[in-house]
Amino acid sequence: MEGHQFDNSLADLPAEVAADLERVTKLIQDRAGSETVQRIHTIAEHLFGGGGKRVRPMLTICSARMLNYSGIAHIELAAAVEFVHTATLAHDDVVDQSRQRRGRPTAQSLWNNKTSVLVGDFLFARSFQLMVASKSMRALAILADTSAVISEAEILQLVTQGRIDLPEATYFQIIRGKTAALFTAASQVGAVIAGGTEAQIDACESYGNTLGMGYQMMDDMLDYSGSEAKLGKRIGDDFRDMKLTLPAIRGVATANEAEKKFWERVFVLGEQRDGDFERAMEILVRRGILEEIHEEAIDWSTRSKDSLAALPENSYRAFLSGLADFAVRRSH
Amino acid sequence: MEGHQFDNSLADLPAEVAADLERVTKLIQDRAGSETVQRIHTIAEHLFGGGGKRVRPMLTICSARMLNYSGIAHIELAAAVEFVHTATLAHDDVVDQSRQRRGRPTAQSLWNNKTSVLVGDFLFARSFQLMVASKSMRALAILADTSAVISEAEILQLVTQGRIDLPEATYFQIIRGKTAALFTAASQVGAVIAGGTEAQIDACESYGNTLGMGYQMMDDMLDYSGSEAKLGKRIGDDFRDMKLTLPAIRGVATANEAEKKFWERVFVLGEQRDGDFERAMEILVRRGILEEIHEEAIDWSTRSKDSLAALPENSYRAFLSGLADFAVRRSH
Repeated sequence: MEGHQFDNSLADLPAEVAADLERVTKLIQDRAGSETVQRIHTIAEHLFGGGGKRVRPMLTICSARMLNYSGIAHIELAAAVEFVHTATLAHDDVVDQSRQRRGRPTAQSLWNNKTSVLVGDFLFARSFQLMVASKSMRALAILADTSAVISEAEILQLVTQGRIDLPEATYFQIIRGKTAALFTAASQVGAVIAGGTEAQIDACESYGNTLGMGYQMMDDMLDYSGSEAKLGKRIGDDFRDMKLTLPAIRGVATANEAEKKFWERVFVLGEQRDGDFERAMEILVRRGILEEIHEEAIDWSTRSKDSLAALPENSYRAFLSGLADFAVRRSH
Repeated sequence: MEGHQFDNSLADLPAEVAADLERVTKLIQDRAGSETVQRIHTIAEHLFGGGGKRVRPMLTICSARMLNYSGIAHIELAAAVEFVHTATLAHDDVVDQSRQRRGRPTAQSLWNNKTSVLVGDFLFARSFQLMVASKSMRALAILADTSAVISEAEILQLVTQGRIDLPEATYFQIIRGKTAALFTAASQVGAVIAGGTEAQIDACESYGNTLGMGYQMMDDMLDYSGSEAKLGKRIGDDFRDMKLTLPAIRGVATANEAEKKFWERVFVLGEQRDGDFERAMEILVRRGILEEIHEEAIDWSTRSKDSLAALPENSYRAFLSGLADFAVRRSH
């Protein structure tokens, strides 16, 4: 469901944040292995090695720094958040049987299902240890609740699979849980560890949530329109996985008789032929659905930037504002 | 790997412990569901519905009560421990493709792999929330470390699968992680929440560890010798799953040429025929291997009871002592 890159074009990344991200990467490398079982390290390295966007750790670090935090617990929490995210990807690889993620073969295709499940569990355990290391009971509470919300959303997605009439409300519920929840927690715990006021913690919560919503809508939209080279992953994955995301939901909702049959064939019967994905893209462009979703993602991004008003005006806040713009840019 | 029943014959269960276990069961029922996704409750109910032995919650409750604890956090921690255990079973069902557990069809055979992974994750998240509810950072740290140890052991078991020459040391490392670690944590967090002295916490740690080791050795032994009806699960599961446990490891180590070929055929080539399991049992009985393992399990049980010396002499301690005897009784 996700994949566009944040890595490049983040020119205004404050130097302290860049340095903190290095420390997060180092901490992840340190903790991703196991002294007793070498294999874990090999697999974990592969999972993290994709590099990814590290957008979630960025949120934790920026929130903490923005509120003048000078300790080290934000590094632990940022790493914990990335461990949760990576564990989720490992388990996603099992359940979706997706063959590629971040443009590289998934762990599952190199190792088996068993391994992905167990290494995912190990990464969850490591994230949990890092949260404990931060010594913040409130951060632990936020991340515990978030873990529950994430898995509820994963299950909701699973049990509604194959429903061609998936309500938009359910789609939004799923992306809120699968993506926005961890963005929210990542921002929030940064503010918590920095000892922010309740208003500041709320503002970070709101920033993370709206950013996550816009980011995921954008990602789902780009899967029907992006350039593979630029995105660093194949497009059309959701289509091929018969995963009904917002573009397809709206495609179905506005379909004429012929299109209705088309959507049912590809998403319910799973009979997909050469040219089907191109036809789907063509329909979505012609109906203006992709553009419409892009507009809505931009609205989320605007709300995201608005949330920042309650926070101190500094280079970290400026960066977060730029990040919100960046998340919904049509091409990166 | 496990299964013999603790439920019956525990006549000397102190009334307070029985009442606490009721509260744990109620709390588990309350937290096993999700407001948004009904399916979770159905599956979780099935997983917990097997009833099981609730031996881990018993340890938490007894340790806390033994040290005069009068709060409610031991209920939360006991439930958390059982959630961890049940989540592990859900993920085990995926990875082992075992068809039965606790004498009932596994979640996997009723639902699919995806569901078992995600519901397992949900149960882990719930356990995490319950630990946070206990408000004990030290209990959280113990359970976080334990989670990592459990998944390391699961992975160690996975990567050594198919090794007919599995060293006993590796077997012991695996059962220490897969079983004894959670027994240890369960006892320990009870003492921690009760504000026990370091010596008392250590004694509980040692009790849980030795109990877990003896319990698991016994379980692995009984899989080659128990009565299906009494155990409440099929015997021969480890054999059929080609899982090399202590009986088979010693069978291999003492094999003559013909037996060596037999063990290789059934465990490495996986060519199992009618009568093979009976032949394995016959060899293990004839060589005295099952009896020998039983003796060693009893030694662990004795060490377990010895650990209790450092703890207050009361009905809870007496019960824990009886539990150690019970765990290694040849038939229950």
